[in-house]
Amino acid sequence: MKGVILSINPDAIIVDISHDIAPQDIQQGALILANSVNYFPRDAIHICVVDPGVGSSRRPIAVQAGETFFVGPDNGVLSWAMEAVQGSTRAVHLTNAHYFLPRVSNTFHGRDIFSPVAAHLSRGVPLDALGEEISDWIKLPAPQAQTRADDALVGQVIYIDKFGNLVLNLTEEQITSTNYIVEIAGRAIRGLARTFADRAEGELLACIGSSGHLDIAVRNGNAARELGVKVGEEVVVRKLGGWVVG
Amino acid sequence: MKGVILSINPDAIIVDISHDIAPQDIQQGALILANSVNYFPRDAIHICVVDPGVGSSRRPIAVQAGETFFVGPDNGVLSWAMEAVQGSTRAVHLTNAHYFLPRVSNTFHGRDIFSPVAAHLSRGVPLDALGEEISDWIKLPAPQAQTRADDALVGQVIYIDKFGNLVLNLTEEQITSTNYIVEIAGRAIRGLARTFADRAEGELLACIGSSGHLDIAVRNGNAARELGVKVGEEVVVRKLGGWVVG
Amino acid sequence: MKGVILSINPDAIIVDISHDIAPQDIQQGALILANSVNYFPRDAIHICVVDPGVGSSRRPIAVQAGETFFVGPDNGVLSWAMEAVQGSTRAVHLTNAHYFLPRVSNTFHGRDIFSPVAAHLSRGVPLDALGEEISDWIKLPAPQAQTRADDALVGQVIYIDKFGNLVLNLTEEQITSTNYIVEIAGRAIRGLARTFADRAEGELLACIGSSGHLDIAVRNGNAARELGVKVGEEVVVRKLGGWVVG
Repeated sequence: MKGVILSINPDAIIVDISHDIAPQDIQQGALILANSVNYFPRDAIHICVVDPGVGSSRRPIAVQAGETFFVGPDNGVLSWAMEAVQGSTRAVHLTNAHYFLPRVSNTFHGRDIFSPVAAHLSRGVPLDALGEEISDWIKLPAPQAQTRADDALVGQVIYIDKFGNLVLNLTEEQITSTNYIVEIAGRAIRGLARTFADRAEGELLACIGSSGHLDIAVRNGNAARELGVKVGEEVVVRKLGGWVVG
Repeated sequence: MKGVILSINPDAIIVDISHDIAPQDIQQGALILANSVNYFPRDAIHICVVDPGVGSSRRPIAVQAGETFFVGPDNGVLSWAMEAVQGSTRAVHLTNAHYFLPRVSNTFHGRDIFSPVAAHLSRGVPLDALGEEISDWIKLPAPQAQTRADDALVGQVIYIDKFGNLVLNLTEEQITSTNYIVEIAGRAIRGLARTFADRAEGELLACIGSSGHLDIAVRNGNAARELGVKVGEEVVVRKLGGWVVG
Repeated sequence: MKGVILSINPDAIIVDISHDIAPQDIQQGALILANSVNYFPRDAIHICVVDPGVGSSRRPIAVQAGETFFVGPDNGVLSWAMEAVQGSTRAVHLTNAHYFLPRVSNTFHGRDIFSPVAAHLSRGVPLDALGEEISDWIKLPAPQAQTRADDALVGQVIYIDKFGNLVLNLTEEQITSTNYIVEIAGRAIRGLARTFADRAEGELLACIGSSGHLDIAVRNGNAARELGVKVGEEVVVRKLGGWVVG
């Protein structure tokens, strides 16, 4: 992919965000991209290829959101990042093979379609030249935490990072005080830490992580391994002493 | 290695192709490089270090094939890529220590010889200045599929990618229709798929992969794990209803 | 982190040294950085984030050593590299939030403090502008090999690379001949090899590695796995026939 990009635009600056997305895990790719996009230059072009439907009828697309571009499969992997960027959104179905490699494989559109299209975008080719405008791109449903009858929030683990820290679908907007009990896998965590270092070595803790979500971690340890949990694990957050309006 | 290159040529553009070659697996390195080279700019300089003989009498070499350069050990790891590039080929044994780091370790020629040589090449130092021309560089034998008495093709798994997809030493030139039975590890796959998505979730399939080889995969799964196979596993391809001349 | 850097300095050249440091392993990070720094351009800016105390009272710092800059946590991870660079050393406690991201998380200072500070340094912001000068930065103790009563050297494994090679806290300055017996995990290695290829396939060997330390390896194998050892494992080096003054 990088060779293809540099063959078309030798001045392109290429940055890897992650090669550690689990195979076919569209939600994980979407989350990483959405969490990263606003830390990049506004006029960046993001290629994201988590693409279990490669070669099928799923559409290849390019998107402009504000000044930022995205190129990838129309399976929802781009959708959270598109929403995270400020500005209006336009998308095209990539149908103009003039901007693809001369020969397109059925199994590696990252190399044969997305990379050359992104490189041409970086050279100023307008979005409209790449294909026909569409408005029905796939939007990945956001894994929403639910409020239970007893007022507890019920969420899930949506990502586990390489340290074994658990990222939940509960954001700092929903977590308005530190006076909580967080329950996961039969364990209860009382109160929120400000950061890992607020707790003792090996202690299980909950805190607002760097992506603005509630995280569960073990100080200098691996929470996923210690709790034996995977993405999708349920988490219950109960407020002590009534809710505070944030 | 990157620090060495940038110390000599601050304008160098450095791209990683792979850091996931299995230790000492020359064939795997050769395959990845050969599959990648023609997607890079023609005037790229490729460093490839799979180097179990580092510090021994195996020669360090630099090669020009067409407009493309290669730098690495003379153990065959460069040879398939050299053949994949169009144009005539010249090679030199790297003997001119003027273009090495001042101090050369016995265990890391990637840093001490190959990187500085590649950086000097990128600044226009001619190939001839780097050492004496040779013509007896090592050519890695291509793992050829064989035709059996009963007309079946017998090949092997030559590479397993990070998704667990199996790449075979059978190319699309040898596979002239889709009417095959592919046998591996006691399983039989009837017919070739156009792409992964042509098959049901979890189904074992064979298709022409992105490198132009016949691949065996599990739709949204891991074929290597499911079949319990490694590189070298035998694969038999039997044509149904007689061979079609391609 | 790369997005933040390029947002501030689009001309920055970014190189990854390693993403394979074990979580919270400050010594490993310090060693990799110290071994790499002098292979990079003198005026490089190194960011190193092994940061178990992120968000606590541990200080974020920036350091100038000679012409080279370092940015990271004040937990010792930078200290060996600072000593490895020639020239005088100055350090500041990063207190000027003007050079941070507008919003600083408690768990990812790499993104929110170190990357923007490094990017501003690369644009010429002087060290003094970043905070107040300090002289009491944390110096990681060097894991020193000891000389025993019987004149043997007793060291430890301080790093295991991805090939399973063991790096010891014994340097080539301490190893003045090849006439040694190296003992580890109940095994004895007689003599030092010049390089891996001096030994037979699968043979356990000791040699001076590319970082100038004594290494233990298995020719085309994995010494850590074969010996079942980890970082910290004791190694005894006994000289045969008396010490030679180097």
